[in-house]
Amino acid sequence: MALVNEHYLKLKSGYLFPEIGRRVQAFTEANPEARIIRLGIGDVTQPLPPAVIESFHHGVSEMGQPDTFRGYGPEQGYRFLIDLIIEHDYKARGIALEPDEIFVSDGSKCDCGNIQEIFAVENTIAVADPVYPVYVDTNVMAGRTGKADNQGRYAGLHYMECTEANGFLPVLPDRKVDIIYLCFPNNPTGAVADRETLQAWVDYARENQAVILFDAAYEAYITEEHIPHSIYELPGAKECAIEFKSFSKTAGFTGTRCAYTVVPKALMGRTSEGKPAGLNPLWHRRHTTKFNGVSYPVQVAAAAIYSKAGKAQIQDLISYYMGNARIIRETMSEAGFTVYGGVNAPYIWMRTPGGMKSWEFFDLMLDRAHVVGTPGSGFGPAGEGFFRLSAFGQRENVEEAVGRIRDSITSS
Amino acid sequence: MALVNEHYLKLKSGYLFPEIGRRVQAFTEANPEARIIRLGIGDVTQPLPPAVIESFHHGVSEMGQPDTFRGYGPEQGYRFLIDLIIEHDYKARGIALEPDEIFVSDGSKCDCGNIQEIFAVENTIAVADPVYPVYVDTNVMAGRTGKADNQGRYAGLHYMECTEANGFLPVLPDRKVDIIYLCFPNNPTGAVADRETLQAWVDYARENQAVILFDAAYEAYITEEHIPHSIYELPGAKECAIEFKSFSKTAGFTGTRCAYTVVPKALMGRTSEGKPAGLNPLWHRRHTTKFNGVSYPVQVAAAAIYSKAGKAQIQDLISYYMGNARIIRETMSEAGFTVYGGVNAPYIWMRTPGGMKSWEFFDLMLDRAHVVGTPGSGFGPAGEGFFRLSAFGQRENVEEAVGRIRDSITSS
Repeated sequence: MALVNEHYLKLKSGYLFPEIGRRVQAFTEANPEARIIRLGIGDVTQPLPPAVIESFHHGVSEMGQPDTFRGYGPEQGYRFLIDLIIEHDYKARGIALEPDEIFVSDGSKCDCGNIQEIFAVENTIAVADPVYPVYVDTNVMAGRTGKADNQGRYAGLHYMECTEANGFLPVLPDRKVDIIYLCFPNNPTGAVADRETLQAWVDYARENQAVILFDAAYEAYITEEHIPHSIYELPGAKECAIEFKSFSKTAGFTGTRCAYTVVPKALMGRTSEGKPAGLNPLWHRRHTTKFNGVSYPVQVAAAAIYSKAGKAQIQDLISYYMGNARIIRETMSEAGFTVYGGVNAPYIWMRTPGGMKSWEFFDLMLDRAHVVGTPGSGFGPAGEGFFRLSAFGQRENVEEAVGRIRDSITSS
Repeated sequence: MALVNEHYLKLKSGYLFPEIGRRVQAFTEANPEARIIRLGIGDVTQPLPPAVIESFHHGVSEMGQPDTFRGYGPEQGYRFLIDLIIEHDYKARGIALEPDEIFVSDGSKCDCGNIQEIFAVENTIAVADPVYPVYVDTNVMAGRTGKADNQGRYAGLHYMECTEANGFLPVLPDRKVDIIYLCFPNNPTGAVADRETLQAWVDYARENQAVILFDAAYEAYITEEHIPHSIYELPGAKECAIEFKSFSKTAGFTGTRCAYTVVPKALMGRTSEGKPAGLNPLWHRRHTTKFNGVSYPVQVAAAAIYSKAGKAQIQDLISYYMGNARIIRETMSEAGFTVYGGVNAPYIWMRTPGGMKSWEFFDLMLDRAHVVGTPGSGFGPAGEGFFRLSAFGQRENVEEAVGRIRDSITSS
């Protein structure tokens, strides 16, 4: 009798975005004439930059010729891409990494979701609240939690509340935790961690032999000079942190799929007897056994991001979205909202008016302004009373959306 | 203290192909002048067909234009591809499937590796011996086994020996097992299962509420009319089987990455209390939480496989490789080897001469003929004394390789 993994049955029904999709679809069916503007899911809208497209075509053409066709590639990614990553994303910041510390993959969501496999079920996991749901759900699936309470918090997880009071920065746990998910610039709050904040985490992790899982998917959106772009800018981080980076938001790769994860060879977990065990070989084993490499033309396309033209075009893309972020931030502030984020991150995290519940405000905005945002409570109970707007829209849509939100509120 | 998943530490050091890679590299360094021919790893060598390349370019171009750019797609795959799969791979064979029973992915290796997650750790797993190592290794990682013995067999797994005596067909277990991995056409033996054989498995699974994980990655290589192409051709299979299909070997996608998995909605697992629990929603939850869809241009490229031109070009590809298979089979037979497979599968499974060990024969072939094959024992102890040759080479290389093998044996 085939038994199912009953940990899956603990999961709350809706992963956030499908639930948004259902509500939007219901609204659209009832109001087919409404022109909905979506600033909900954090998905890019601008096409791939010309340098990437040109390189992508080149990679495809190679697959059509006998002399340049590629079959199975290295599961960890081609050296031409790994060497560019090391050179531009790390060496340029004074960080030395070796090629076998980089694992190219098809997405940070996948890597963030799969990384927990190399750890024992017994570890205590710390996550922020609000949080990117994948960190939590994948640990529920693996059996590292009990059931959810009626707030949606799973027993056994250590939740770190990120509130206005603490500037949306998780506070160091007052007890020992083993694995800590951190995301900076943060999704959904847009908060960033400065050197001092990050160093405190690195120190905590080293003292407690904990591991930090550092999600830096939005690193390219940092505009302030004093904010670290990689956790490895902090001394000691290579002994305690895994870093996730993605081309999704950096270069518009959400539908193209390419990312990478750094697992330093200096990073050790422990066996139940307390012996050190390298996490790099464990992730290498996982990656080579359950994954078969990123599509070759996609890797060729990703490499173009590091060319002179590619870099300039990507900077333009990011500036475009951050221009949107400024418009959202300023218009919402002027309309009387309390607004966070949007300076080093493409997300604006705003307080709902009059203590309204997040989903109530979501429905109101959908109904009155025909604008889709993301209810803060979808990221955890501490997100209740907040609403996330994404800066990834088309400029004219963003302008119209914030105008509609402002008007729908001020006219009520 | 972050504890590692110690089940990983039970894994035998070498996944087979890295070990082959190490030996070939050592040989090459010692013999830089040797022109090695690789018929080891089952990787295609012919370029993507023109119809696929044309479509691939089209998909890339769409990503460069604002009106046709695609961000996140549905994790399960685009409907345009799913509908083609249902129409051509299933409806054409009299099998009715619904779109939400198909999950497009980046590879069958990934899906075969990840599928075990939706099952409880307590299930008893049955695998063939010899076997594709991913089925075994991913269950070891998940903690469904004890340690390996000195033959490489893990405690707790039910091994089904496939030998000359049983025609390389696994025998129905004499005890209850819960999950059964079957692969037809088989990698590595090239054996196929006829309707009667498969029906017996379907009946066993239904009687025992077991689930069959049916790997049909080599389905396109079936040449004999009476051999089923899908397990769903058998009555009752939708209630007991998950099927894995790949474009890797069908259309040369090993470096391009696209595959799909079928999880019928009629298929139930059981909770520990014996209640039925649909496997389709569990896999849907897994796929949408830990995966983010296949690259859009890759899905557009894959769709071209089902066009009239694409189908013809793919048939040419398969005929080319099966021409290689015939050459290998006939030449090796004439040279006195006992040879299996190569009729409905691109693999030739041959007995080593004089009872030689598989790795010994591997080293001999590398040394004398400069030909890389795959040692049968790398697929399990029952593969000892066998050697796998792949038909995926260039024709001239295949001809030269078998000539060299023949000469190296007959001259010794």
